[in-house]
Amino acid sequence: MPAPVITSTQNPTVKRLVRLRGSRRAREEERAVLIEGARETARALAAGWAAQELYLCPALFSPEAAALAAQLAEATDLSREAFAKVSGREHPDGVLMLADAPQACWPQLESSALIVVLHGLEKPGNVGAILRTVDGVGADGVLVLGRGADVFGPNVIRASQGSVFNVPLVQAEEAEAWTWLEEEGFRLVACTPDAPQTLWDADLTGRVALLLGTEHAGLPAEWRATEYAVSIPMRGQADSLNVSTAAAVVLYEALRQRR
Amino acid sequence: MPAPVITSTQNPTVKRLVRLRGSRRAREEERAVLIEGARETARALAAGWAAQELYLCPALFSPEAAALAAQLAEATDLSREAFAKVSGREHPDGVLMLADAPQACWPQLESSALIVVLHGLEKPGNVGAILRTVDGVGADGVLVLGRGADVFGPNVIRASQGSVFNVPLVQAEEAEAWTWLEEEGFRLVACTPDAPQTLWDADLTGRVALLLGTEHAGLPAEWRATEYAVSIPMRGQADSLNVSTAAAVVLYEALRQRR
Repeated sequence: MPAPVITSTQNPTVKRLVRLRGSRRAREEERAVLIEGARETARALAAGWAAQELYLCPALFSPEAAALAAQLAEATDLSREAFAKVSGREHPDGVLMLADAPQACWPQLESSALIVVLHGLEKPGNVGAILRTVDGVGADGVLVLGRGADVFGPNVIRASQGSVFNVPLVQAEEAEAWTWLEEEGFRLVACTPDAPQTLWDADLTGRVALLLGTEHAGLPAEWRATEYAVSIPMRGQADSLNVSTAAAVVLYEALRQRR
Repeated sequence: MPAPVITSTQNPTVKRLVRLRGSRRAREEERAVLIEGARETARALAAGWAAQELYLCPALFSPEAAALAAQLAEATDLSREAFAKVSGREHPDGVLMLADAPQACWPQLESSALIVVLHGLEKPGNVGAILRTVDGVGADGVLVLGRGADVFGPNVIRASQGSVFNVPLVQAEEAEAWTWLEEEGFRLVACTPDAPQTLWDADLTGRVALLLGTEHAGLPAEWRATEYAVSIPMRGQADSLNVSTAAAVVLYEALRQRR
């Protein structure tokens, strides 16, 4: 095994990677997406993302990481100490890739397209879980409004288990989003606890955009006031579900209706 | 405002509370449940749990905490420093209660009872999220098998947002559980990604026990091999949902079928 190229935790590349991991601003300035982990890296590559830079630490490899690394060229090896410094994980597997932030675009949308609109969601764990479910139901994409969680940040990537690379993901301003949704003929379905209509009574077939609001405040009034607001029945003490749980329940009901 | 009774972070009570927060063994030895936060404490009290000991830090009170504290008697006041030491939160709200671990028992179960069986789930976040959903659908209880997450530990309480206090929750050995489920006439519905039958094609009405396995390995073979194993269709790249997401999708489908 050749000696690692970077052994010092004070190396400028190590410092830069630490900054990219910790700072959204740094990532945005470089337009860089930092992807850690063999599974996430493999899914990004499989989805057509190109590695701009690749960092490996063979001493830390899991079997999955070793198998992936064998297929990768032109990586920079890091020592165990240097990799631990740039890793955001408790048990790093020695694989880290930098990619360019993708150009946002929609695929060709069918008349029965199903998308999710996230309005200002802040918790990366929730955004990641929703992306995983969107991939699960095979929905057509996610439209992200407002300045919430960094959708290509390390925590969303991790929580999505890499689904972020397989789901078309577009960020937009609110006004622009309204126009686009209207032009494309999307029926807006707002998920909100106070809607009189349950998800089971709503028609979730056809071209539907499912609207989800922030963890604390839900959707703003103008987004809640759609003809197709739906609620999820709550039979216990709690007044609402976690937003990622709510998303899964409604998305799978849409899939059921579309069978 | 009277001076706090406990100001030192070296106070023996502070040290004991820190130990109870951090150590499952310590909690089990004292048969104590440590409940932090105004919302969680209020839900525990509303569910009939009795406070054995109550610790407050008025300097840290949220409005919700102040309102709750006004109704509570015989609390011990802690200084800001002492409370920060015993708190497990980034932004503590100054309310902490110790309660006795509850006696496990089932309520009177109806012929259409719906319960969830958790087999060895390890992540407190998943167990807490499932408890929140079980409360949401108004299911009848949760049966916990194996030595997984501590269901009355601080992380489950927090992730459940206090739903753990409203959901009948019984821990049992596997053999004992089999016998009980059979005697009570539960139809076992195993959630497993490889079942040929989808959740939509299964009959989820009547007395049903929904079986969920660990995050990594799923259910053991003997629990998977029930007549009513169901899968959740996966249309994307990922091969499974998070277990708490899967639980929500199946529980709400059961609720839909039971309307």
